[in-house]
Amino acid sequence: MKHALNVTREQDFAAWYQAVISEADLAEESGVRGCMVIRPWGYGIWERIQKLLDDRIKATGHENCYFPLFIPLSYFEKEAEHVDGFAKEMAVVTHHRLIQKDGRLVPDPEAKLEEPLVVRPTSETVIGAAFSRWVQSWRDLPVLINQWANVVRWEMRTRMFLRTSEFLWQEGHTAHASEAEAREETLKMLEVYRSFAEDCLALPVVAGEKPENERFPGAVATYSIEAMMQDGKALQAGTSHFLGTTFSQAQNIRFQNAEGQQELAQTTSWGVSTRMIGGVIMVHGDDDGLRVPPRIAPWQIVVVPMLRDTEEDDAILAYCQDLTDSLSKLDAFREPVRALLDRRPAKAANKRWGWVKKGAPIIVEVGGRDVAGGNVSMVRRDRLYNDAGKLDSAVVAKGDFVAGAAKMLEDIQQALHGQARAFLDSNIDRSVTDMAAFKTYFAAKKPGWLEVQWSKPGGAALDKVVETLKGMKLTLRNVPSDAATADGTCIFTGEKAVERVLVGKAY
Amino acid sequence: MKHALNVTREQDFAAWYQAVISEADLAEESGVRGCMVIRPWGYGIWERIQKLLDDRIKATGHENCYFPLFIPLSYFEKEAEHVDGFAKEMAVVTHHRLIQKDGRLVPDPEAKLEEPLVVRPTSETVIGAAFSRWVQSWRDLPVLINQWANVVRWEMRTRMFLRTSEFLWQEGHTAHASEAEAREETLKMLEVYRSFAEDCLALPVVAGEKPENERFPGAVATYSIEAMMQDGKALQAGTSHFLGTTFSQAQNIRFQNAEGQQELAQTTSWGVSTRMIGGVIMVHGDDDGLRVPPRIAPWQIVVVPMLRDTEEDDAILAYCQDLTDSLSKLDAFREPVRALLDRRPAKAANKRWGWVKKGAPIIVEVGGRDVAGGNVSMVRRDRLYNDAGKLDSAVVAKGDFVAGAAKMLEDIQQALHGQARAFLDSNIDRSVTDMAAFKTYFAAKKPGWLEVQWSKPGGAALDKVVETLKGMKLTLRNVPSDAATADGTCIFTGEKAVERVLVGKAY
Repeated sequence: MKHALNVTREQDFAAWYQAVISEADLAEESGVRGCMVIRPWGYGIWERIQKLLDDRIKATGHENCYFPLFIPLSYFEKEAEHVDGFAKEMAVVTHHRLIQKDGRLVPDPEAKLEEPLVVRPTSETVIGAAFSRWVQSWRDLPVLINQWANVVRWEMRTRMFLRTSEFLWQEGHTAHASEAEAREETLKMLEVYRSFAEDCLALPVVAGEKPENERFPGAVATYSIEAMMQDGKALQAGTSHFLGTTFSQAQNIRFQNAEGQQELAQTTSWGVSTRMIGGVIMVHGDDDGLRVPPRIAPWQIVVVPMLRDTEEDDAILAYCQDLTDSLSKLDAFREPVRALLDRRPAKAANKRWGWVKKGAPIIVEVGGRDVAGGNVSMVRRDRLYNDAGKLDSAVVAKGDFVAGAAKMLEDIQQALHGQARAFLDSNIDRSVTDMAAFKTYFAAKKPGWLEVQWSKPGGAALDKVVETLKGMKLTLRNVPSDAATADGTCIFTGEKAVERVLVGKAY
Repeated sequence: MKHALNVTREQDFAAWYQAVISEADLAEESGVRGCMVIRPWGYGIWERIQKLLDDRIKATGHENCYFPLFIPLSYFEKEAEHVDGFAKEMAVVTHHRLIQKDGRLVPDPEAKLEEPLVVRPTSETVIGAAFSRWVQSWRDLPVLINQWANVVRWEMRTRMFLRTSEFLWQEGHTAHASEAEAREETLKMLEVYRSFAEDCLALPVVAGEKPENERFPGAVATYSIEAMMQDGKALQAGTSHFLGTTFSQAQNIRFQNAEGQQELAQTTSWGVSTRMIGGVIMVHGDDDGLRVPPRIAPWQIVVVPMLRDTEEDDAILAYCQDLTDSLSKLDAFREPVRALLDRRPAKAANKRWGWVKKGAPIIVEVGGRDVAGGNVSMVRRDRLYNDAGKLDSAVVAKGDFVAGAAKMLEDIQQALHGQARAFLDSNIDRSVTDMAAFKTYFAAKKPGWLEVQWSKPGGAALDKVVETLKGMKLTLRNVPSDAATADGTCIFTGEKAVERVLVGKAY
């Protein structure tokens, strides 16, 4: 069977991923090292993600702010563990002016900054400094804020959406009077991410705590949601950190409690990024391109008129406009349906395949015969082919199509989620209890994840486990919140197990 | 009469401006040179501006994208005039790693970039490079894109919202097959800005073309909207540039026209920034703080319960919740009304004055007596005091208040616009025809603007005019699109006038 992309997932998953990004017009190399251009279809998906997640962040009581792009070096020096985690990969601004020299532009030596500025890799330090100004009394707590911003972490090997030097994200930062409340916040936002991924991105994920070695620099506890790509690898799609008093100590975030004593605030931070789009591609894409879940599709229904440069064209266009207007008046997922009439000057078949590759959930074609019969020809992107391997295009009465369109979008959302959920569930193996079987499992061509019992070793003992796994290109993903309690021995140490941890290859 | 701020506009306009920003919790100094922290109320106003303007940008056929924060130096070298305009004030990234040295963090000499990267001051060069990849044929045109982003222009003297090293903005960039179409786009977006400022920000503006000396570096023509602050100074609140082939030549944006010949594309760019918030403050603020036009107010109606720590409190809160719910179900300006129940633990009078300073359009207070009588006590922020100089608080039946609330918000929007329009109109003098009267006008305590006839000198003759004006701290603002035709002599050169130009002090 022929497909729209010239490489399949089976042939070369990495090349397929790049092909989807390119053929769906999601993003492209910018010519600037490590940075990408996010094109309208890719950015439209990000705008949908922003809107739906922002609603949830606000509904849980957080307000948006904006903090500086630049962070003075000295802010990082205050928190040793944090800087160890980031210092190796930051963009540093050292000059504030350019001059012409020998016909070239160069940084002006006269305009060297006294203190270099770091382009934020994350904003705990600069937001902590603001919190220390804002928080004096228990009455000022909690502080619940979020920002949508670009951040930079210098990367040597980049991959579009998954790992780029500059990326877009939201970072939430909160300060609380008690550890219990801060821990509750950390888990609340983890749950916001989990339900957002499942409900909006149709992305089944496993929520849980990261092991000690995978913690955010400076965190007391780090939680993540992990999604499974179609090649079986894990993608960390969001993290939520309980930071304890690490940053309040470094940035002096203190408050007078109700008893009149000075205390350090307890802080959290949490974030998701444009990386999520990489996850959507690798979970929902197929050999014909991307399939965008309807809730995050910039256009949910695209109407393609089949024009022939004849006098019939006007009638076709009028019919399509009426159809698009009717669809736009519908609600799906409690929002107006996003329907587009594609008027671009190109062949209808090319436009259809363009929208297939982009992954618009429903594609409608209208020709002279459809107008005469009061019909539309439509395909659902989630089931493109029929059993005979032919494009599953159905001719439906226009009125019936409009009447069922909102329900169909909801069906597609559910179908994509169902497929991905089935894939995830069938690719987590919980039965392996010894290292021989462990190695056999991961020696297979396309392994998924193992959930194994372990003794939760720390320090050097954990380092040893991590080192062993590294030799097999594996990492500890997280300890699923909903895993069964441990009842056996640790697969790594042979000691009594205390919990279950997920292991897999990861992006 | 006592006011909520401890400095009035009359006493010290600059100090008053800072006081509004501080007392309304709009923004604060960040501790990072030239960068501010935008606090929730300030950022909430920006989010409203983004939403309303983004709708208009999309409605005129533009799509959002995202381009890199960093621009290689060589991109600037391609366009000499452009780099002259910006080179003096750019943040330059020279290193990509930090190391510890003598207990301090320093840029790692081993990690010096081969080619320094500039933090974008604007994105014509990097977006032009993308356009050159995207545009091959006339069929690829027009390209109509926009991005919301942060940009950096190093500033020695900063003022919050008006001039900060980092600021937030949108920048539209388009490419067209013909000069006529590109010029039409430039004026279309100028009109989008003009109507957006008037309708959404209640900001009366004058739209027109900037004189040659005020053009964007590389532009063939630059247009602006100019707003008048309450101290009579001008604020350029948005610009739209026709760039001709300047950037398509530098970045090689060529296409094959319908006749098979290669042509350079004609480009435009246009932007507005967080500077607009500075304009809103200086146009609508009064001696009690900010007055936010309802369309851009994060909360349009704030309900303050007057609690006394008695058992009556529960009934008051329930009454207030019901009121807030009823208000939230209303639509004003074709959007749901944004109503907040302020439950914070503070005294009602403090909360009321806090919202007065922030400029929430309608503030409602509810005490036990109001609950008993089925009433609310309310103030309109646009008319805070009655003729006797007392707070103009009205007791209204709850049902009547809800029934009239949407209309009241629309009235307030109109009232703020009307006041500002009257101020602008009465502070443009079109009667001055000689330099003596010109000087007298601007020697007054709080002059507005003069619209004078001029011969539109260019080159050295224009430089001379600009120099003369500079000595009086004046600048040429723009040539209003709707100005009367010229019929006299140029006030500067004595030659025959060809058009009318606005002159004033400016931010």
